[in-house]
Amino acid sequence: MKNLMIGSLAALFLTTSLSASAQVDPEDQITYRKAGYSFMSWNMGKIKAMAIDESVAWDPAQVQAAANSIAATANSGMGALFGPGTEKSIGDTKTRVKPEMFTDREGVTKVGMAFNKAANELAAAAQTGDKAQIVKAFAATGDSCKGCHDKFRMD
Amino acid sequence: MKNLMIGSLAALFLTTSLSASAQVDPEDQITYRKAGYSFMSWNMGKIKAMAIDESVAWDPAQVQAAANSIAATANSGMGALFGPGTEKSIGDTKTRVKPEMFTDREGVTKVGMAFNKAANELAAAAQTGDKAQIVKAFAATGDSCKGCHDKFRMD
Repeated sequence: MKNLMIGSLAALFLTTSLSASAQVDPEDQITYRKAGYSFMSWNMGKIKAMAIDESVAWDPAQVQAAANSIAATANSGMGALFGPGTEKSIGDTKTRVKPEMFTDREGVTKVGMAFNKAANELAAAAQTGDKAQIVKAFAATGDSCKGCHDKFRMD
Repeated sequence: MKNLMIGSLAALFLTTSLSASAQVDPEDQITYRKAGYSFMSWNMGKIKAMAIDESVAWDPAQVQAAANSIAATANSGMGALFGPGTEKSIGDTKTRVKPEMFTDREGVTKVGMAFNKAANELAAAAQTGDKAQIVKAFAATGDSCKGCHDKFRMD
């Protein structure tokens, strides 16, 4: 079930560009994709504070809520927000995306699927409430974020 | 189960301010909350295009993905992003929040719970794939967004 979901969502990531992005102008696509990443960053930070740094008290319900939000964002078809015209900053709407994001389809598929898989596994781990599993899945999710940043985002 | 979840998440919305927001400085809190609302706006727009405007082909999987993202964002404890020091814009980090958001606890609880409930019901409707149910739940979610904007957001 979970694997099926990951597969279909990875497909969604790759195939929604034409339909959904037609509705959203390039500047808004950049704004929305940055919003999605930014909001995931907040949720990753909350899990990190509870599970890794232990600077915030362990709260399984908050970990679950954060992990669900990350997974749902990962599964929302953000590929549609990398449509034509979004390769470069538009005025004040800055993007750090590299040109390779729009040419290296195989590489993008690989990091996109890795991220979807890791985010869904993090949500599943959070569901168990088991800290050791969550720490492991969190690290894997962080690695999958970094996998894309290293390849497709400017410093 | 769903009602239980809504109740506990509304509680989460109200009680996370002290713990989680301590980790995030006020400017980042504003950035993150705006990101959450912006990303929800994209997902609402996708459902609108498919279910209301019919300008994009009906795709139950995309409706589900969008509704899940909205619900997970609604359930992520965004109350923590309205901590002390976030009442006004900070430099270029603009906020349109009204002062009442920080004083009218009862009113905030009411709109927050209404929104959580509507977003979870939209996700449940999306799960059925039934367009009529989705249209109804989408309208209710839109109303709950507006309920907060009217009261707590400047034009």
